[in-house]
Amino acid sequence: MPPFTDRLETAVRRCGNPVLVGLDPRAEMLPEGILPGGKDSRPDELAAAYNQFCRGVIDVVAPLVPAVKPQAAFFEQIGPQGMTALAEIIQYAQKKGLLVILDGKRNDIGSTAEAYARGLLGPGGRSPWGADALTVSPYLGGDSLRPFVDVAMDRSAGLFVLVKTSNPGGGMFQDLLSDGRPLYRHVADYVEKLAAETTGACGYGSVGAVVGATYPEQLAELRAQMPHTWFLVPGFGSQGGTASDVAAAFDQRGLGAVINNSRGIIFAHARGQYAQRFGPERWQEAVEAATVDMIEQLRTEGGINPV
Amino acid sequence: MPPFTDRLETAVRRCGNPVLVGLDPRAEMLPEGILPGGKDSRPDELAAAYNQFCRGVIDVVAPLVPAVKPQAAFFEQIGPQGMTALAEIIQYAQKKGLLVILDGKRNDIGSTAEAYARGLLGPGGRSPWGADALTVSPYLGGDSLRPFVDVAMDRSAGLFVLVKTSNPGGGMFQDLLSDGRPLYRHVADYVEKLAAETTGACGYGSVGAVVGATYPEQLAELRAQMPHTWFLVPGFGSQGGTASDVAAAFDQRGLGAVINNSRGIIFAHARGQYAQRFGPERWQEAVEAATVDMIEQLRTEGGINPV
Repeated sequence: MPPFTDRLETAVRRCGNPVLVGLDPRAEMLPEGILPGGKDSRPDELAAAYNQFCRGVIDVVAPLVPAVKPQAAFFEQIGPQGMTALAEIIQYAQKKGLLVILDGKRNDIGSTAEAYARGLLGPGGRSPWGADALTVSPYLGGDSLRPFVDVAMDRSAGLFVLVKTSNPGGGMFQDLLSDGRPLYRHVADYVEKLAAETTGACGYGSVGAVVGATYPEQLAELRAQMPHTWFLVPGFGSQGGTASDVAAAFDQRGLGAVINNSRGIIFAHARGQYAQRFGPERWQEAVEAATVDMIEQLRTEGGINPV
Repeated sequence: MPPFTDRLETAVRRCGNPVLVGLDPRAEMLPEGILPGGKDSRPDELAAAYNQFCRGVIDVVAPLVPAVKPQAAFFEQIGPQGMTALAEIIQYAQKKGLLVILDGKRNDIGSTAEAYARGLLGPGGRSPWGADALTVSPYLGGDSLRPFVDVAMDRSAGLFVLVKTSNPGGGMFQDLLSDGRPLYRHVADYVEKLAAETTGACGYGSVGAVVGATYPEQLAELRAQMPHTWFLVPGFGSQGGTASDVAAAFDQRGLGAVINNSRGIIFAHARGQYAQRFGPERWQEAVEAATVDMIEQLRTEGGINPV
């Protein structure tokens, strides 16, 4: 199996867009009928509903986009049955040709970090969850990231390290200045080093960075600082990031980043124009329209057209 | 149910020691006979072995110490069956009178952070895993910690935020100087604020800090900086921290910290004097002896004698 970075590049080129659909199932936002008992349903009912809903999203987006990003927290909230559903959804997405970036923001030290990596990473049935890539947190330092990198390299998998996050309070620590530069740029230096060590044929590494869409100037600075690093960009849409905001994340070929949209796509049936056009019963058509519209926005307003 | 902080104080006083036994089951280190097929066993066999082993540890340590700390990564490595075993072990420990601090180092933003908290925290059957407290990572900033605090307060649960970790590379980012102070002291300011907001009758808050035993001077500085904050201190024993190293984590009453020991206790049957005295068959006696010896070391060498 080719390295994650080259599999991601191939997928982005094949689809002609860098859209990453976030699978964040929330009981209270599911289309009517999928979870008749509502958010107080039993764990097995919640797990079945999340499974059905995410498969429904995957069926629609698999022909359109390169990758999906399930959010581990929503599955973990249900309990072990939710974690079983997560594994099933990851496998289902991969069978449909999608890459799967699991958003788990895991981190620990030494052999404990290795245990997370062995559990979560490894497409092709090499781990119980088998994601193609995983998000990880850097606070514990370089020796906490290294075991994740080692397992990822062994399994043709990828990582995205939190660098600059999209939430309003992300700057509390990430923006603290040290030697005249904010903390996130120090983290960026180390992540770029890991990316350069893991570079594939496409010129980017299998270790990437999470960089929020809500800070366009910082996206541009980091793009220059991190020439070998794929960016996973959250914050598009519901958090306020626009197509022109994220344009700076890309190189001249239209490569180097994937742009996440979760709620704006998967719960489109409840949003503005899509609610009116499709409503809850035709929720999959709403997902499709929102995905197509985002791809088009990135092309026209952002000038992003990977080929 | 009283707040976590007061339940912890009561448990430490009742036991007369601050020992936190880490439940880090590793397939390759289990006593002979518990996992006949070794580390390549099926997930259900691994989960059953981890369950049996951790119950065996709990049976021995429950009358001796206030709390245990299961490490989520080792259970997650097995897959969903491991996560089921984790839930069963947490419940078993609580039935035996132990507090359970789940070491998950989770973190995310907004409603996603809330989903982790709702899934993992909440003794008394209020969540699928039901831990009394959870470790969390601060990189995403204050607004990522707030949802964890809100759920913890609602459920009489606690948190331990990573501040200064015990691993050799922990300083890569945590020690970066900003305004003349290392990053971890900025994080410490915010955690102390959360601790002060959540103070119980015992004078400490339900939000605590993870501070490694491998930096005794920093432990003393942080104790002064964080008067309302319980410390969860890893790094004792196998990572090199001694009883006198950790003494600075305590107040004059012998309260304010719990000292973790994982491998040094649960795999004592394979270590030096305990291996000779007990060997693999009498592994539970080795666990008991190592626990009693650690309590005694903290009393005699560390002068730690909470009453």
